[in-house]
Formats: sequence, C-alpha cells, structure tokens
Amino acid sequence: MQDSGKLNLILQERKTVDIDPDPLTRKIFLGLPEPGLTDNRADVDRVRQELIKILSDRVNIDLDIMRKIPRTVRESGWRATAVAGWFSWGWKLVDLQEGDTTARHFGLAVDIGTTTVVAYLVDMATGRVTDVRAGYNGQIKYGEDILSRIFSARDNEGLMQLRGAVTDTLNGLILGLAERNGLAAEEITAVSVGANTTMVHLFLGLDPRNICVAPYIPAVNSPGIIEAGHLGLMVNRKAPVYIFPGVGSYLGGDVVAGILASGMHRRDELALLVDIGTNGEIVMGNSQWMAGCAGAAGPALEGGVAACGMRAEPGAIYKVKIDRETGQAEYHTIGEGPPVGICGSGLVDSIAELFLAGMIDRSGRFRGGKNSFVLVPAGRSGTGKDIAVSQADINNFMRTKGAVNAALEHLLESVGCGLADIERFYAAGAFGHHLDIESAVTLGLYPDLPRDRMVKIGNSSGEGARIALMSRQCIREAEDIARNITYFELNASQEFMNRFVSSKFIPHTNLDYFPTVKRRMAERGILKE
Amino acid sequence: MQDSGKLNLILQERKTVDIDPDPLTRKIFLGLPEPGLTDNRADVDRVRQELIKILSDRVNIDLDIMRKIPRTVRESGWRATAVAGWFSWGWKLVDLQEGDTTARHFGLAVDIGTTTVVAYLVDMATGRVTDVRAGYNGQIKYGEDILSRIFSARDNEGLMQLRGAVTDTLNGLILGLAERNGLAAEEITAVSVGANTTMVHLFLGLDPRNICVAPYIPAVNSPGIIEAGHLGLMVNRKAPVYIFPGVGSYLGGDVVAGILASGMHRRDELALLVDIGTNGEIVMGNSQWMAGCAGAAGPALEGGVAACGMRAEPGAIYKVKIDRETGQAEYHTIGEGPPVGICGSGLVDSIAELFLAGMIDRSGRFRGGKNSFVLVPAGRSGTGKDIAVSQADINNFMRTKGAVNAALEHLLESVGCGLADIERFYAAGAFGHHLDIESAVTLGLYPDLPRDRMVKIGNSSGEGARIALMSRQCIREAEDIARNITYFELNASQEFMNRFVSSKFIPHTNLDYFPTVKRRMAERGILKE
Repeated sequence: MQDSGKLNLILQERKTVDIDPDPLTRKIFLGLPEPGLTDNRADVDRVRQELIKILSDRVNIDLDIMRKIPRTVRESGWRATAVAGWFSWGWKLVDLQEGDTTARHFGLAVDIGTTTVVAYLVDMATGRVTDVRAGYNGQIKYGEDILSRIFSARDNEGLMQLRGAVTDTLNGLILGLAERNGLAAEEITAVSVGANTTMVHLFLGLDPRNICVAPYIPAVNSPGIIEAGHLGLMVNRKAPVYIFPGVGSYLGGDVVAGILASGMHRRDELALLVDIGTNGEIVMGNSQWMAGCAGAAGPALEGGVAACGMRAEPGAIYKVKIDRETGQAEYHTIGEGPPVGICGSGLVDSIAELFLAGMIDRSGRFRGGKNSFVLVPAGRSGTGKDIAVSQADINNFMRTKGAVNAALEHLLESVGCGLADIERFYAAGAFGHHLDIESAVTLGLYPDLPRDRMVKIGNSSGEGARIALMSRQCIREAEDIARNITYFELNASQEFMNRFVSSKFIPHTNLDYFPTVKRRMAERGILKE
Repeated sequence: MQDSGKLNLILQERKTVDIDPDPLTRKIFLGLPEPGLTDNRADVDRVRQELIKILSDRVNIDLDIMRKIPRTVRESGWRATAVAGWFSWGWKLVDLQEGDTTARHFGLAVDIGTTTVVAYLVDMATGRVTDVRAGYNGQIKYGEDILSRIFSARDNEGLMQLRGAVTDTLNGLILGLAERNGLAAEEITAVSVGANTTMVHLFLGLDPRNICVAPYIPAVNSPGIIEAGHLGLMVNRKAPVYIFPGVGSYLGGDVVAGILASGMHRRDELALLVDIGTNGEIVMGNSQWMAGCAGAAGPALEGGVAACGMRAEPGAIYKVKIDRETGQAEYHTIGEGPPVGICGSGLVDSIAELFLAGMIDRSGRFRGGKNSFVLVPAGRSGTGKDIAVSQADINNFMRTKGAVNAALEHLLESVGCGLADIERFYAAGAFGHHLDIESAVTLGLYPDLPRDRMVKIGNSSGEGARIALMSRQCIREAEDIARNITYFELNASQEFMNRFVSSKFIPHTNLDYFPTVKRRMAERGILKE
C-alpha cells in the first residue's frame, strides 16, 4: 500500500467553510478535590460532577470506565484527563487517563469509497491533518461495482465477509498511521466517515438488498454516532464514530460530507456540486433549498479499472498533452518518477487530448481502425510494459460521462433551472484534485460554465469528515442537509435513460451547450464532422 | 431454593405512594406506512420517526437493532412492536418485535441483600407483582458479612468471582420465574435493583476496597441505568437496569428504594425509617430535608446466621409465645407445616419472650447457667434435630440491636430531634414483614412510639424497585432522595462507639426511653433487677 504525500494537500488547499472548534471528542484535564469525611462523594460521581461543570451537559459513564476510575484517580493523585465523546444524545466518558494528556488528541477522518479508502489523521488540538493513508477497499475481491457487492452480501455470511473486508482495510490504514506517527491506535478517540449508502451499509453490517430494488429503500439513512468497538475499529473502542447521513440509496453520506465541506448550504448563491466517483452525484441549491440525484457513473475514473489505471499515487500519470502533429504524448507523474499507470485525471486528459487531436471521434471511437493509444512505450515505463489508453477504457469513460450529463440535465429540468443560473460550480471527489477542468469540460463531463465560477474542492468527502471531527455544529448541519435535500430517484426514470443514451457524445449531442468546446473544436478543425 | 407464596404479599399489603404509570420500558405497537417512491425514508429512520412522534423524545437505535429492522418490518407487513427503554439520557430501542406483542410486557424488581436475593416478576401492563422467587446470595461462600466479602474481592479475580456469584444467583431466579410463568427470559425488558452499597459494587464488578477504609468513599453512588447485557443478566440483553443510588458507603440504594416506597419524601410529617438487614440503616426527615446513618448490625436476623436460622420460607418459625409458667413455647411456621428453623422475626419473638419470661436478663444472658432454649425438640421438628435459640444467637442479636439503638440516638441528636417529634415510623426490610412490633419494642430494637404511628412496610427495597419499574418520575425522585440526604458517617465517630456499648441492654440502659416496656416489665415482675 502506497500513498502520496500530496494527498495530504487535498485537505489543505481550499477552506470553504469557517468553523468554530467544538470537536466530537474533548480532552479535559481534571484537578479533582480529594475526598474526605466532609466531601465523601463517590469517585465516579466526583468525576462526573466536575465534567458536568465544564461541559454544562449530562455525561454518561459506562460500566467499564466506572471500573477503572477509582484506581486512575488515586494513582494519578486526583489529576486525570477525561476524554469526553459526543453521542448525539449527550456526552459519554470515552476514557480517563492519568495526569494531563490534553496535548495528545487524535481523530480520524475517513472516506470509504467503493474502490479506495482514505484515512486522514487529524490533530484534534489544531484541527490539522497531520498524515494520510489510502488503500484499495478490500471488498474489491467480492466485486468491483456496487451491484456485485450487494449481490455478494445477499446472505449474512457474505455480508459479514464484506464488512470484515472494509474494516480490515481501514484498520490497516489506522495501524499504519499510528505507527508512522508514533502513537497508539487507542489514542485516536474520534472518527468520522463519509461513504456512499452501500458502503455505509456494508461497513455497518446492514443488509443492503433493498438498495437496488424498487422503491430503493436503504436500511438506514442516518446511522448517527456509533461506538468504534461496535464497528470493530482498532481505535479507542469507545470512540464516537460519526457516519455521515445519506439522502437515499444513491445519494450518500459522502456527498453530504462534500456539501458540508463546500459550504454551499450556508450561502445564498445557487451552486452546483458534481462528485464523480463510482456514481456521479449531483446536488444543486443554496442555503434555502437543495436537490440532488445520482447516475451510476461506474468506476471508469477510479484507479484500477482502466487497463493501465491506478490510484493517484507516485508514478501515476495525472497530466497529459498530445502533440497533434507528432502524435507524441507529453505527461507528468505524481512525484515525477517513472510512469507506472494512469490515474483518473490522466485518463480524462488523455481522452480529451485524443479528441482534440482528432484521434478519436465524437462518439469516442478511435479513428483508422486503432483500438488503443500508447502513452508510454514499454521501454520508458516503470513497469516494463506499454502504458496505453484502450478503446474499452474510453467506452467506460463514455458511460460515466453520459450518466453524469444525463443526471445533470434531469436535475436542472426538475428544479426548473438552466446552466446560466449556476453561480458556483464545485468539482468534488478525490479524483478531481488533479483533474484539468478544461479537459473535463472538453469531454462534457463538466458543464461549460465561466471558469471563474468553477472550483475544485478535492476530496470533499474527506474534508467534510475532517470538519465533522472538529465541529458538532457542523454535524448538526450535515444532518439538516441530508434531511432537506429533495432527492430524485433516477433508477425509476425512463426519461433519464433516454437522456443517458443521447448524451454519449463528446462533449454532447447538442454542441451549443458547450460553446467554449465548440470554439476550440473549430480552431482545431474538428468541428465539421 | 424455596420460596414462600406469602412473600408475594409483601409487595401488596400496603401502598404508601401513588404513581402515574410511566414505566422504564414501553411497548409501542407501530402500524408503519409502507415505503414507496414518494416516501422513500429508510427503514430505521421510518421506525425512529414513528417512535419520536409517540414518545416526543429522541430514540437511540443501536447497530445490532438496526441490523434486524429491515427484515422485521418486512416480514411483519410493516406491523411491529417497539420496546423502548429509558436510559436517563433518552430512550433506546431495546427490541423490535413482529406484530402486536404489547400484551406481554414483563419487568423484574430485585432486592440484592447480603444474605438473600429476592426477584419479583412484574407485569408491566398492570404494575402488579405476578410472582416472586428468593434465594441465598451465592456470595455467602466467600464470606458471610460485608467486610469479608470486600476482603474476598481484594484482587480482580476475587472481585469477578463475587460478581459472578451474585449474577448466577439472580439468573437462577430469573430462569425460575420465566419457566414457572411460561415466558422467555428475554421477554423481561426492564429491571430495577435495590441493594446496599457493597452489593452494588460487587454486582457491577466495581472495586469495593475504599468502602471500608477512611474516609469511606465508594467507587460510585449513582450508577444510573445500565444495559442488562453489560451485567450478564439473562433477561433481554438491552433491557435497562436501574440501580438505585446510594448515599454513602453504608447507606445504600436499598434504603433509598425503601424511602421511595414509604413515600416519606413526599410528605410534610416527620418520619423515621428503620431498615434492619445486615446493616441497621436509619433515615429521618420529610419532604423538606432528610438525614441518615447506618450502624453495622450484622446478619443476626437474616436467615442462615443463627444456629437454627433460616429465611422466611415454608417451615420457618416466625411467631413465638413462651408460657412463663411452663416454659413451653407455642409457635407458628410459615405455611403451618413442620418447623425446620427460625427466621428473623421468630428469633426476635423468641428473645423478647425469653426476656419477658425472665429466662434471660437485661444484658441478654441466660439465667441459671443455661446456654440455649429449645423451641422445638428433635422429635417434633421437621429436621429430626432440636430447634433452639442459643446464647450465641442472642449475643449476635444484642450487637444488632445495640448498633441500631446507637445509630438512632446519634441521628436524633445530630438533627436536634427527640423521639416525641416522630410522627411516623416505618419498619422496613424483608424481615420486618413478619416481625411483631411489640417484640421489637420490648427488646429496644424499635423505639417505644405510639403504636398508631408505627407502620410495617415489608420489603420496601423490593417495593421501591417495583415502583421504579413503573415510573420514571419515581426514578427521578429516588435520585433526588439520594442526593439530598445528609449522611452521617458513624465509622468515623467515637461517640457512636460509646453509645453502641451503652445500648447493649434490653431494652436500653435508660429504661425511661421505653415506657411501655418498663410498664410491662413491672407487670411481669422483672423490673427490679
């Protein structure tokens, strides 16, 4: 498992919401008055009363923590640090530690994708991401897409295997982060998770079968805050784990986390957020209203699906230019080392460049009987093999793009808006970090809006998760967002299917929707076809 | 293990507090709207929203219950019964059952004594006790009294043995009640427990070591409500288990439960409550103030300590008259079968009668060199052996009585009251049910008050536990009672020791405190000594 130091930056480059620190867990140093005949309060009650004074709120203390309190307060000379975790209904004492440990306070922000799981280690004292690790979701061996995962989880044994697989992946990341940063995994005392609805079900061990059959009803949309031990996570077992709420079967908590990170729910301007992962999820709205839908984009742009695909890790080609005259590709890799594969943004760049070079036509087919394009010949690649974009890769991408296009059109029409009304466009998703917006617009993946309205917000699901760790107010906002989004279920829509079919052209059947692309095509002389 | 049908009556004979039913768990039938494309709420959220409507309060749903909801609501055709349990911070979904199961709703009121554990099966639909079982506390093999139990629990292994012993005892009673009443133990979905502070510690697995060393600080006084599964109880594992709060190391939740049952905290009249078990606990006060203390009475009156002692079970001698002329004893047994031993009230009757017959002197010593009195000769007993009261039994009793006397005097003086101020006297404790008040006054165990002010309230700890099952308001009252009692720690008092020594006379060193006894002694001609 590898990860790029640059991934870290994803959560640093653009802060779109301001938050007042009010974290999911608090560490509170207690200098307790010693008991005596005139103050004979019991140990647990003494600790609880001190905490209530500070938190101005009820604090629950589980039996196992009660059991350790008498020894902890006495051995520390009545100086101990309480870790209080928020569980929606109130605070719970997660741990009581000897002495003053307030300086060491760690949380974990998690983005569980169908393909990739990313875990950010957050210093809860500052709110900063101090490290990040990513890995392929261990469920991949049970099926690459959502539907085959749901099928694999059709009985309890399968469900538990899938649950175990993603938990193992996450625990691997946790232990890796702990080791690399010199902390015990138990020192992580807060977790928040953004994930799509199916991933949430499989992570929680909830039967996902009703997600994929009409009327597409999840077992739960708002799981709330759950103890880490109940999820098998190797952090502090009483740590609160906030699971972002979903809106429906195909508009999940990852998107809600993204909305939270974008801050669009707080502003009056009409915003459009597009998050392209395994699904293409689209949300429009502002502080007054919000509506969303999702089209099954497929994992074309996630690492490991295209023949030479990989995650955005060192060695991944993420930026491509193709010389129209020579047909030679110029590329950059993450870390600038030898190329070993192509990540999502590299694939989008490649296909856009192939199109603008006239090497593929508007339906995405290679011209002249070819069925692949070699970006890096074997002799220069880090793998000793050609790194190429194949016709199959392009076909996959065309389905993704078609689904995103169709969903966007459906949503615009449903809410009675046009593209011109959009005041802000947020390009979300881990893959969006390196993505070249021009390439995405060229291919019709993103709408052709004034570029100063378009903002890349990177792995906004992970950023939303980080924000939730640091602000209970933002958790409440996330719950409100999920509750208030009007959700259009596209699975049930024949109209959507028609749109999907008709949008499988580059950039779109109707070129007038993409004026800047039309202009560029004219410049390149590929408009006439 | 035997139990008397009459024990049942203990909770029926006198209701001293009125309660509005507002039970610890509620069973709520839900006719859920079926989901569709226009109502695509997730299953768990659908159930939760219905419950919130009914309870007007937040409802937490644990992961394991979330997991069973999709199947339960579908297999029942969206008609299911929610069991909602109260956990101080809010409601939790304890179970979701197919169809309408509201008619079957069971709770368990428990009194854990140092010697005896009593479990009352409560029909939560009516609030009535439908059955009762009692058994010796399985911890007895680790020590008969509180101090030796605490010593046995000095390391974690010992603590866990003692915890396991009382849990086993209680589970035996639970399974017995379930079997005898044709229900599954899991159908018991609420439990409340009255117990002394040490018993609470051992039941919860909390280190009791600081209870018996100055400044006598328990690990916890208010454990609150705990999930049954965390306690190893074989009822529904998510059932709320309310543990009555204690006031201090020697004034425990059993007494608070007794106060609740007496209702003295709601009235303006000045009341005195005396609960004699292993400790003699004494509380005075009214709706305005309350004060209490405890003297280590020893288990003299609990079954199994006196040589021929036993619990108040069939065959126990509970009522005794001794003919002064013939020296013959006339007795009654519980169930009126052949006598097999003497229960606490029988022992008090016997000693009082021995005293009034002039067979023991004011210091409790047998006259004429005897060292026992045979109540039932071997030939007529159910055991084939003599049933007798020995000098050792009397000496044990004298310590108990001395402790109770001294504690009462200490308390009266501390709060600046005299016996004449007492408007109501509550004789509490399981053993008090059969106790003859005249005998208790004769021996100085109870004060010599006008008899119309004296009320036996039986096993008030069990009755308090029953009330807590049926009323969350009463749980709040219990917490208030515990918080507001001024506690006098007698272990720290030299004055108490002096009083203890000087009160080891029948009925008291100062006969003028006991005018009716003095009169009767005069009638019997035993006053001059």
